Amino acid sequence: MTFIQTERTKLKRLPKRGHFDRETVYGILDEGFICHVGFAPEGQPVVIPTGYARAGDKLYIHGSQASRMLKTLSGGVDACVTVTIIDGLVLARSAFHHSMNYRSVVIFGRATLIEDHEEKMAALLALSEHIVRGRWAEVREPTEQEMRATTVLSLPLVEASAKVRTGPPIDDEEDYALPVWAGVVPLRLEAGEPIKDPRLPDGIEVPEYARNYKR
Amino acid sequence: MTFIQTERTKLKRLPKRGHFDRETVYGILDEGFICHVGFAPEGQPVVIPTGYARAGDKLYIHGSQASRMLKTLSGGVDACVTVTIIDGLVLARSAFHHSMNYRSVVIFGRATLIEDHEEKMAALLALSEHIVRGRWAEVREPTEQEMRATTVLSLPLVEASAKVRTGPPIDDEEDYALPVWAGVVPLRLEAGEPIKDPRLPDGIEVPEYARNYKR
Repeated sequence: MTFIQTERTKLKRLPKRGHFDRETVYGILDEGFICHVGFAPEGQPVVIPTGYARAGDKLYIHGSQASRMLKTLSGGVDACVTVTIIDGLVLARSAFHHSMNYRSVVIFGRATLIEDHEEKMAALLALSEHIVRGRWAEVREPTEQEMRATTVLSLPLVEASAKVRTGPPIDDEEDYALPVWAGVVPLRLEAGEPIKDPRLPDGIEVPEYARNYKR
Repeated sequence: MTFIQTERTKLKRLPKRGHFDRETVYGILDEGFICHVGFAPEGQPVVIPTGYARAGDKLYIHGSQASRMLKTLSGGVDACVTVTIIDGLVLARSAFHHSMNYRSVVIFGRATLIEDHEEKMAALLALSEHIVRGRWAEVREPTEQEMRATTVLSLPLVEASAKVRTGPPIDDEEDYALPVWAGVVPLRLEAGEPIKDPRLPDGIEVPEYARNYKR
């Protein structure tokens, strides 16, 4: 299954970096967990980072019912949501050919407010599980009041594309003779030792999903 | 020195997370190296990830002279540039109070094209040094043709603000008694073992800045 290319998602340059198959796009969305949401009330672009989760062909974002971003987006305005994973620094022999290895997804669309209680709870569970799998079952579920204080939006994954760069630097042929180290410095988001809450009572062990957090 | 708060940068919610001092804003910009640039040609928001560097009160971004984003931005349109560093997952006792520790900067403004050759070279050096300090001195400098093929934009750091969350979860008082682990899973971007270019001749050592890459 592939996404249809539109004027907005078609790559004008370096088309070989473009990917429109769901497997690639969803793989990136499922590995990342922070997106940058762009919207432009009255023409002024605003870009805000936030967590997200994918479930099927929908992307969920959520936050306080008082959030300006969520209020604006739930009005049905055009949005652009971008997810970026940086995989490495590409060190070439010439300054010009330096690059980065990355995987990014750009989604265009209009979000809608989830009003149905059951769907909203399922989306909140998906958001929680996407970021820390296994956590939801252990914590106190949202109360009715907390549910009312939370806005959840759903963005259809219809107009989406991925851009991917992998591999070593591509230098000009004559530069390969230069006595300069070249290659890739891999980068990834790593979890450190969990830091317990100062008010945590003794005897509560760090759960496995926190001790060995991986994406 | 602090940035003046404007309608666009003022935090409507959680104002205690807002920071307008240059030290905080520039500290985040200097630690990060990927920004998300938002612009809205004909009202349609677009968000694109790219590298950047700060020099003084300017933020530089660059890319191919053929880049649609750089062409649009150099036309002097309103832009929003956001830099986000994720520091940890905040695991609370209730689903509702889960959060993230992060530091982000949002900049509003209009970029201008750098046309002066000397300023453009200095900006490219700043971009290179910001991402891999020490690299520029070892690699082949850009030729005149490469300079012409590269667009560098400068965004004035005038309307900027930071948002920061740190520390443990803040739970509802009655939830502190729940027998649930709570705390923070720290996250950071870590560099792995450098991967040499398959065409690298023998005998060229990995430079220190690549072997021990840190931000």
